[in-house]
Amino acid sequence: MEFEEKTLKRRKIFKGHIFEVAVDEVELPNHLGRAERELIFHRGAVAILAVTPDDKLIIVKQYRKAIEKISYEIPAGKLEIGENGSEYDAALRELEEETGYSGDLEQIHEFYTAIGFCNEKIKLYLATNLKKVPQPRPQDEDEVLELFELTYEECLDLIQSGKIEDAKTIIALQYFALHFKGGK
Amino acid sequence: MEFEEKTLKRRKIFKGHIFEVAVDEVELPNHLGRAERELIFHRGAVAILAVTPDDKLIIVKQYRKAIEKISYEIPAGKLEIGENGSEYDAALRELEEETGYSGDLEQIHEFYTAIGFCNEKIKLYLATNLKKVPQPRPQDEDEVLELFELTYEECLDLIQSGKIEDAKTIIALQYFALHFKGGK
Repeated sequence: MEFEEKTLKRRKIFKGHIFEVAVDEVELPNHLGRAERELIFHRGAVAILAVTPDDKLIIVKQYRKAIEKISYEIPAGKLEIGENGSEYDAALRELEEETGYSGDLEQIHEFYTAIGFCNEKIKLYLATNLKKVPQPRPQDEDEVLELFELTYEECLDLIQSGKIEDAKTIIALQYFALHFKGGK
Repeated sequence: MEFEEKTLKRRKIFKGHIFEVAVDEVELPNHLGRAERELIFHRGAVAILAVTPDDKLIIVKQYRKAIEKISYEIPAGKLEIGENGSEYDAALRELEEETGYSGDLEQIHEFYTAIGFCNEKIKLYLATNLKKVPQPRPQDEDEVLELFELTYEECLDLIQSGKIEDAKTIIALQYFALHFKGGK
């Protein structure tokens, strides 16, 4: 059985600052004919599970236009141009910009967020030994953020109440439960 | 501190079968001025962590055009038109179409996959008491799938080797580790 779909033609639809959109006409494997694939191309992103010395988790409150709601998430940010391949540095930068902390980073997961139509890949880091940066790099101008340091149980309450509904944050919280809470 | 971004103008870019694309001009809160938001609108999807009576997990091998790679994932599928609000039925349908199994479903998580720019929401179900359907509904015509029933440890090997890189599948596997393996 063959799996690969060969690109016959690509129609470019949109080139934005965050993503590009294309529609590919593909040749299906196993003589199944042709099909169209609607695709989003994204530069990738980093996210940080930041754990304070007293085992609290840093959570960012912000407005998300795509869902027209306020959302609670772990710190994260898109890779900037030229940062491809230096996700570690991007994660350090985002942690400092969004939280004012620096720390020791270790990659714990990487995953495609919406693999059916989008190539956005997130590298998720664990940050420990957090230290306040005296003069942190400023936040992005068009972001309004509020920071919280929450216990794991408080984060579970935010899932229960529908305030945490973000895949990368759920992955991070499960990781914390598995590795810091002995699977509780 | 205010968080909400008010839509001043929406530019519609693309209306496909899988998603729509728009660019919103927004008024930022707290007199921060204006900004643009590039947005993807998606109907939503369901995914199923299907556990066999001998504690194996059903994994689907398929080609993903957005990343130009073969991927191993839990069964999943988009909501079809009119299925909004009946995710339970959609999950039963997808489980049958992709695996030939029926079973008892219980919702275990719901999450936005790429909350920064996309409103796709996945409802994740646990399926147990699996039973082969005698005449299962057929797979989609443009999908080539191969099925595996794997132990949790075999799934971890697929993560290690980079064959599982899918957010919803990682959430499902961590859920399994927390609830079926006692957090191992």
